[in-house]
Amino acid sequence: MTEHFIDRLLDAADKTAPVCVGVDPLYDQLPAELKTATALKDQHLAAISTFCHQLLEIVAPIVPAVKLQIACFEIYRDEGVKLYFNLIRHARKLGLLVIGDVKRGDIGSTAAAYAAGHLGHDAAPDAVTVNGYFGAEGIEPFAKLAGASGSGLFVLVRTSNPSAAALQDFQGADGKKFYEHVAELVAAMDESCGLVGSRGYSHLGAVVAATYPAQARRLRQIMPRQFFLVPGYGAQGASAEDCAAAFKDDGTGAIVNASRSVIFAYNSPAHAGRDWKKAVSTAAANFAADIADAVRR
Amino acid sequence: MTEHFIDRLLDAADKTAPVCVGVDPLYDQLPAELKTATALKDQHLAAISTFCHQLLEIVAPIVPAVKLQIACFEIYRDEGVKLYFNLIRHARKLGLLVIGDVKRGDIGSTAAAYAAGHLGHDAAPDAVTVNGYFGAEGIEPFAKLAGASGSGLFVLVRTSNPSAAALQDFQGADGKKFYEHVAELVAAMDESCGLVGSRGYSHLGAVVAATYPAQARRLRQIMPRQFFLVPGYGAQGASAEDCAAAFKDDGTGAIVNASRSVIFAYNSPAHAGRDWKKAVSTAAANFAADIADAVRR
Repeated sequence: MTEHFIDRLLDAADKTAPVCVGVDPLYDQLPAELKTATALKDQHLAAISTFCHQLLEIVAPIVPAVKLQIACFEIYRDEGVKLYFNLIRHARKLGLLVIGDVKRGDIGSTAAAYAAGHLGHDAAPDAVTVNGYFGAEGIEPFAKLAGASGSGLFVLVRTSNPSAAALQDFQGADGKKFYEHVAELVAAMDESCGLVGSRGYSHLGAVVAATYPAQARRLRQIMPRQFFLVPGYGAQGASAEDCAAAFKDDGTGAIVNASRSVIFAYNSPAHAGRDWKKAVSTAAANFAADIADAVRR
Repeated sequence: MTEHFIDRLLDAADKTAPVCVGVDPLYDQLPAELKTATALKDQHLAAISTFCHQLLEIVAPIVPAVKLQIACFEIYRDEGVKLYFNLIRHARKLGLLVIGDVKRGDIGSTAAAYAAGHLGHDAAPDAVTVNGYFGAEGIEPFAKLAGASGSGLFVLVRTSNPSAAALQDFQGADGKKFYEHVAELVAAMDESCGLVGSRGYSHLGAVVAATYPAQARRLRQIMPRQFFLVPGYGAQGASAEDCAAAFKDDGTGAIVNASRSVIFAYNSPAHAGRDWKKAVSTAAANFAADIADAVRR
């Protein structure tokens, strides 16, 4: 897997849609038939394992990529982390690209340790998310290892949650908001450590929420070579139109993620009484079509 | 362990010094006698396990607390995470308080999953570090679970690495720097979700680097109830005098961490030819005395 990550992602997205299903499994939300009567954590984890393996099989023909939320696995400590890496292997066998949503970040030497744990080995995802609060020094080790292994990274720039504004929209003396400043740092770093693929995008990407489309448009200008990972669609409130703001006019430049609205679709009134697999498959297909339509319009 | 975390930490620090040894094991840095001739990762991890267990035993009589850097364990994926939690148990048996340096952070529901994985269970540390880039929503789940379990958290405010300034010192239109803004958010959150112990400190603490003493003094004013976890001493360049800026006049308010300068002391010329355990023990004792002197002066 030394081909450029974004080239691989775009090739796969061309055949389906620029979307990604977020695998954020929570035991309480599992289909009733997979739950057990016990409160034993290892049985809960076994149910999550069954659910996730089947989930990957359901979405593999529909979407190009999945995003695994490691927090949901860390609830179960080392056993959960083992499942996380097993699922990456399973997803890859199914032809899916995998983003590890790990949001790691630390000072340089520690960031290098995180990068070694999460990128470039046989069970590693194709890309990870990175928290850039430590500045360039905390991002570079991920960029370096990702570059050497045909992988990618997405640095948090503007997140999708309501209370993020209190920090990320902090107004600078130079007229810029803090998130714009982070975006400029990412674009500047790209000059030194970004690897641009055949489609014009760097392996050093950014997380840009769909819940603030005006900001996404501004960030699209600041970071022309960055590929955006876009959270916020569905359960978090953003529409496909909102998501389209993260894309360029040619319909490339981003991948939209939906987690809860797809993987727990069977819990919504719209799918009541339906087989959980059918509900997930329908929700994934609708999500892909919704985004493809909005982007190609 | 429902007694307030900071009360427990201060009681222990009163008997020794307000310091913490950072357990950031890297295979390459291990004592020669513990290394193996093989490149096999599981044998490397076994050597790290031996080193860390012995390290905890060496420092337990000298310092009140240790800080485990999970990144160094995540290099070895689930097996490394298993060792991380085993070491927490071992440290606790030795009477040490344990800070899990995990720097997790995400949107609310995901932060709750991270909190469940890292706080409040039988193998969980007494406190964790949290990356607050998501704002209040990403910090609250940690504060809630920590409060319910007599644990604590330290939110990253000003980190110790050189390139952090590019983001954390971002100058605001209101005359404040970004890190001051983060500190104000933490202090404001403390009003709603902080639990203050008998010594006047909240279980909601902050990470404040020793490498910028003027900033630490300023942050001491903005966050009077926050206990500071202070990185940057030793290998990162801060002196004991620099660290003292994070403390109040009564000598409380912070705990200073040293990692590499203590745990890899045998690799420094000052300890050449010495037994590694003796070198570590001496370095830990010197570190504790250095900080105690500077703070009580």
